[in-house]
Amino acid sequence: MSLKEVQKKVDDWAKQFNPPYWQPLEIMARLTEEVGELARELNHIYGPKKKKSNEEIKELEDEICDIIMTLCCLANSHGIDLDEAFERTVKKLYERDSKRFGKKTV
Amino acid sequence: MSLKEVQKKVDDWAKQFNPPYWQPLEIMARLTEEVGELARELNHIYGPKKKKSNEEIKELEDEICDIIMTLCCLANSHGIDLDEAFERTVKKLYERDSKRFGKKTV
Amino acid sequence: MSLKEVQKKVDDWAKQFNPPYWQPLEIMARLTEEVGELARELNHIYGPKKKKSNEEIKELEDEICDIIMTLCCLANSHGIDLDEAFERTVKKLYERDSKRFGKKTV
Amino acid sequence: MSLKEVQKKVDDWAKQFNPPYWQPLEIMARLTEEVGELARELNHIYGPKKKKSNEEIKELEDEICDIIMTLCCLANSHGIDLDEAFERTVKKLYERDSKRFGKKTV
Repeated sequence: MSLKEVQKKVDDWAKQFNPPYWQPLEIMARLTEEVGELARELNHIYGPKKKKSNEEIKELEDEICDIIMTLCCLANSHGIDLDEAFERTVKKLYERDSKRFGKKTV
Repeated sequence: MSLKEVQKKVDDWAKQFNPPYWQPLEIMARLTEEVGELARELNHIYGPKKKKSNEEIKELEDEICDIIMTLCCLANSHGIDLDEAFERTVKKLYERDSKRFGKKTV
Repeated sequence: MSLKEVQKKVDDWAKQFNPPYWQPLEIMARLTEEVGELARELNHIYGPKKKKSNEEIKELEDEICDIIMTLCCLANSHGIDLDEAFERTVKKLYERDSKRFGKKTV
Repeated sequence: MSLKEVQKKVDDWAKQFNPPYWQPLEIMARLTEEVGELARELNHIYGPKKKKSNEEIKELEDEICDIIMTLCCLANSHGIDLDEAFERTVKKLYERDSKRFGKKTV
């Protein structure tokens, strides 16, 4: 599934509603909520109570995808093409961030 | 670019480093930082100082992609296949959330 | 209740446990979770579904205090005196931020 | 400095501006931004690059207080009395959360 398709699937779903997308700061608050749920899940798995299991990893997957879904809502409501934007991000990573951390020595 | 490819690109980049990925709660803190940058950007555009411009939309794209990149780090370091997981999310959206909001009336 | 007292109350509570405080990145993840709950609450009240009521305002109070409580855990586990630190913040506000927004004209 | 005084100091500062407080979802986005800055600071100190120093702890103090300040904006703009609300939180902690973790054994 390409990023374009991911965005399209979210858009198909959103178009059932009127308006299809919330206001930007409403989507932002929702994103913050979803990120909070991911944080809780990671604390479940790696935090003080540690309970890593297949069940928890599945939850982790769901939380990550809920965030991606919310980001797609934001992108779609701004007409942003994530495929194109992500290419730029990868390029930036190599250019800017490659000096930041200790690279593997051969 | 498919989600699998997106993950692969992040993994190619990460593999330059040793270890390739940070610890989960470190990635979580980074994600929170990136989400904070998106929030600032959205407040720039829609908040009290409102300055929507092409420049700002480009920033918005970058911030969204930085979050996706961080999520890929988390997914990759757990061997999560986002394509598969996202299919489940879309299915869940239709099943669970479709009743939540006022659907368009025809 | 002074900030010192607020911190003391949290410390009294925390000292029941061993260790009294979680690791910093664990507290950070918890903070992110609590902030997510506040975001959800604000979206309930002001977002697409708007349902402002006394009940909701009480929830809002609780969420704000849960965040303050989590911040106190972080501060306490670092021996931070919030009274002193907050004085500095207020000073900074007047110095640095006072030029940022349109001040009231008389 | 009591919580009431903390709120009062923020209010004195805010009243210079018109309007004194931003819209709730704007404050929420600002809070998310501030929380992101705290996350970055904690990753500096405890994350992959670890550089704990007095300088960093001072930064940590500032970030925590920036969050408290933002929470006070939210509380003030809703007429919330944090002293009263926090008393309730402490009570809740003892009642609800006391069973959650392994208590110290004497």
